[in-house]
Amino acid sequence: MNNFLSQHAHEQLDHEMVMIEVNLDDCSSEVLAYTMDQLLAAGANDVYYTSIYMKKNRPAYKLSVLTSPTKQQELEEIIFKETTSFGLRFFPVSCHRLGREFYKAKTQWGEVTVKIGIYQGERIKFSPEFEECRALAEKHNLPLQLIYDEAKSIAISQNK
Amino acid sequence: MNNFLSQHAHEQLDHEMVMIEVNLDDCSSEVLAYTMDQLLAAGANDVYYTSIYMKKNRPAYKLSVLTSPTKQQELEEIIFKETTSFGLRFFPVSCHRLGREFYKAKTQWGEVTVKIGIYQGERIKFSPEFEECRALAEKHNLPLQLIYDEAKSIAISQNK
Amino acid sequence: MNNFLSQHAHEQLDHEMVMIEVNLDDCSSEVLAYTMDQLLAAGANDVYYTSIYMKKNRPAYKLSVLTSPTKQQELEEIIFKETTSFGLRFFPVSCHRLGREFYKAKTQWGEVTVKIGIYQGERIKFSPEFEECRALAEKHNLPLQLIYDEAKSIAISQNK
Amino acid sequence: MNNFLSQHAHEQLDHEMVMIEVNLDDCSSEVLAYTMDQLLAAGANDVYYTSIYMKKNRPAYKLSVLTSPTKQQELEEIIFKETTSFGLRFFPVSCHRLGREFYKAKTQWGEVTVKIGIYQGERIKFSPEFEECRALAEKHNLPLQLIYDEAKSIAISQNK
Amino acid sequence: MNNFLSQHAHEQLDHEMVMIEVNLDDCSSEVLAYTMDQLLAAGANDVYYTSIYMKKNRPAYKLSVLTSPTKQQELEEIIFKETTSFGLRFFPVSCHRLGREFYKAKTQWGEVTVKIGIYQGERIKFSPEFEECRALAEKHNLPLQLIYDEAKSIAISQNK
Amino acid sequence: MNNFLSQHAHEQLDHEMVMIEVNLDDCSSEVLAYTMDQLLAAGANDVYYTSIYMKKNRPAYKLSVLTSPTKQQELEEIIFKETTSFGLRFFPVSCHRLGREFYKAKTQWGEVTVKIGIYQGERIKFSPEFEECRALAEKHNLPLQLIYDEAKSIAISQNK
Repeated sequence: MNNFLSQHAHEQLDHEMVMIEVNLDDCSSEVLAYTMDQLLAAGANDVYYTSIYMKKNRPAYKLSVLTSPTKQQELEEIIFKETTSFGLRFFPVSCHRLGREFYKAKTQWGEVTVKIGIYQGERIKFSPEFEECRALAEKHNLPLQLIYDEAKSIAISQNK
Repeated sequence: MNNFLSQHAHEQLDHEMVMIEVNLDDCSSEVLAYTMDQLLAAGANDVYYTSIYMKKNRPAYKLSVLTSPTKQQELEEIIFKETTSFGLRFFPVSCHRLGREFYKAKTQWGEVTVKIGIYQGERIKFSPEFEECRALAEKHNLPLQLIYDEAKSIAISQNK
Repeated sequence: MNNFLSQHAHEQLDHEMVMIEVNLDDCSSEVLAYTMDQLLAAGANDVYYTSIYMKKNRPAYKLSVLTSPTKQQELEEIIFKETTSFGLRFFPVSCHRLGREFYKAKTQWGEVTVKIGIYQGERIKFSPEFEECRALAEKHNLPLQLIYDEAKSIAISQNK
Repeated sequence: MNNFLSQHAHEQLDHEMVMIEVNLDDCSSEVLAYTMDQLLAAGANDVYYTSIYMKKNRPAYKLSVLTSPTKQQELEEIIFKETTSFGLRFFPVSCHRLGREFYKAKTQWGEVTVKIGIYQGERIKFSPEFEECRALAEKHNLPLQLIYDEAKSIAISQNK
Repeated sequence: MNNFLSQHAHEQLDHEMVMIEVNLDDCSSEVLAYTMDQLLAAGANDVYYTSIYMKKNRPAYKLSVLTSPTKQQELEEIIFKETTSFGLRFFPVSCHRLGREFYKAKTQWGEVTVKIGIYQGERIKFSPEFEECRALAEKHNLPLQLIYDEAKSIAISQNK
Repeated sequence: MNNFLSQHAHEQLDHEMVMIEVNLDDCSSEVLAYTMDQLLAAGANDVYYTSIYMKKNRPAYKLSVLTSPTKQQELEEIIFKETTSFGLRFFPVSCHRLGREFYKAKTQWGEVTVKIGIYQGERIKFSPEFEECRALAEKHNLPLQLIYDEAKSIAISQNK
């Protein structure tokens, strides 16, 4: 199994993360997408939107940003500068992350990296890198799912 | 049962209705709510929004407007003037509506109109007018659901 | 009122609950439904999904699991084994629950249990057990709402 | 390849289908779920809900029912009897369905049926029956995804 | 710049806020809208709904209420009395609010108040009051967006 | 006004468009995003997803593809090859598009193209090209909204 490359092979428990949330009701979708890009580029761990229903019949979006405390101020500044928000809220969260390894699966169309999740010392999750599958699918003009399935299957077999 | 007031007691089938749809991705929620009001005031039969996912990572809203063909042009003009849309689409739909009657239910807190739905000659649906329940709830400082339930229960009993 | 059966008649305030959340973007809906079943069977207090918008144009789902701390590890293991997730987050929440009683309402079609909510010593909520209404609706070939409404109405009357 | 069982091996184009839609704003979720069951049991081809935003600040659900014209009246009756709706709408749709075959994949944990989709004579889609995977997962206490992946992989290999 | 009216011109950081959440699966949309009104009238800082997917195939809504601790008990009472909920949960959140000023923009159609957001001493956000724009739009029979854009543009120019 | 560039300056009404829809319940979000890209690259007029609730407790997505009939077959092939779908549906729709012009707005930070919508001969809609605003925002390290607002304001002024 020496094709398996360890990144941080042990699980992590991080009690010092922060979730920032803000409800946006007068912001166009273009700006929502742009703000997501800015936040990720500045180092947010995760960014996502949820469709919500606000007062005065307004369909709106909740922006959620997961971050370490060291990045919090910079991300809040982006939110205040790019969106229409006059206020945001935040609360502490803990994160539990699997250990990770990477395996190079040699499919008949080319090599695909497979990300592997390790839970209590056991390899339990095999996830081919989507962008690499995409590149091969476009190069060989094949359905992407075909390449994804073969890469996953090879990594699982190697692990037995 | 002479408290029952017939509106159009027989079911209707209308094959000449139109559904207008438009995807809005750069329109604030305030404008969405305002446009809904304008469309209803101008005679749309129904207006609603659905949260959708567009290209370029944009969460957006689909506006749906149900109308008779005679109102279609006026409603399209409102959509084009008030929203950010450069194009809309529409298709024909048929509508099947129940016959309707109204009954005055005398609750212990005051009278509430109950809308009754008639399917193939039979009273099958009893729906207290929400705004009247709300007015009584606020006047008597009671949970609205209590008044709603009693009005419905009285109308059902009268029908037996 | 001796038909009322007390379960835990007083309200409860529990400050030791945990909310686990995880964003899933490469998991089929079949697996989402299956995971929900597994989590509930293992003792989660509540499980629900929310549709979210992630980066790279990916519509996805957030899984939320409410649990006591004693079950947290077991539920995390299910999440890691059944879904595609490489990480989850959690935070403490407090729960406020109404006192509960159960009343057997004798409708004309059969008996239906009504769950009653008690707030500061007062019975304020009457909720017929849905599955029992469903069984009677199917047995007598009647609209379910009819049976539900009668059971609720009987329980409310008995309480006066 | 004599393990492949043909159902209707050729693609179908059916221009006579009907989509029924109805907006429900005063109907509990329990009733929504029950109505879906009733509609499927009565022969609807597909049933689903979409979250929508209606006037007067009301979050609501749109019910969509795909059906052949021969079932339309029966399904409309269920909608009118079980839900709070006073009106529904419908419009004609065409359906394009792949040809289908079924293959029995012999996994190390037991047999799983794989549904295969045929487009213009070519097998392009391999979909293990979820309930069979579920049964094996529960019997052997294994992650469901593991069994699903192996069954799919076997069917794809056999097809080469 | 003496047209700018300061409200609380400095940013605020409030660590003592509370988020109340409750999942509602047997509550009509009319009641959801009414409950939102009651909560806002009683002093909730923010109220919104999110569409969620619960067990037993039930599409439902999560109610979220942001409040100061002094209002928490009163708001919980409204939730328990008006909705079908038997339990709710809550957790502490911190709020970060921009400083605010108000500017009277003199458009060609009339005066519009513009709310201004101040981040670290700098005016960064200009938001015309929607209801005032709406009144002018209806009075002059013009697209609302036109008036909104002019008011915003005037306030930005004055700030330079 | 010779800076205004006419594309197809008159409104269009096209009665020959097709809306393709397909419900996807066992397809990962990565594949959903990839399929959207493939469909747009192949010439679909519009592609979007809607979150829906299917039977057996499955949160899923509806894919909607707006197309001319000449592209329909090619787009159906992409759907069948890339997604997990065994069937799709389609129905005819009419499209009403505004006339379009383009104006080069000279902002203090650089030129931005503004798309203008023409309804019955009148310029009623001014929409700055988002990607151009984005490029200037990144170049000058400014909030994107600032540049967007100025470009829009210049185009509106020129039109008077």
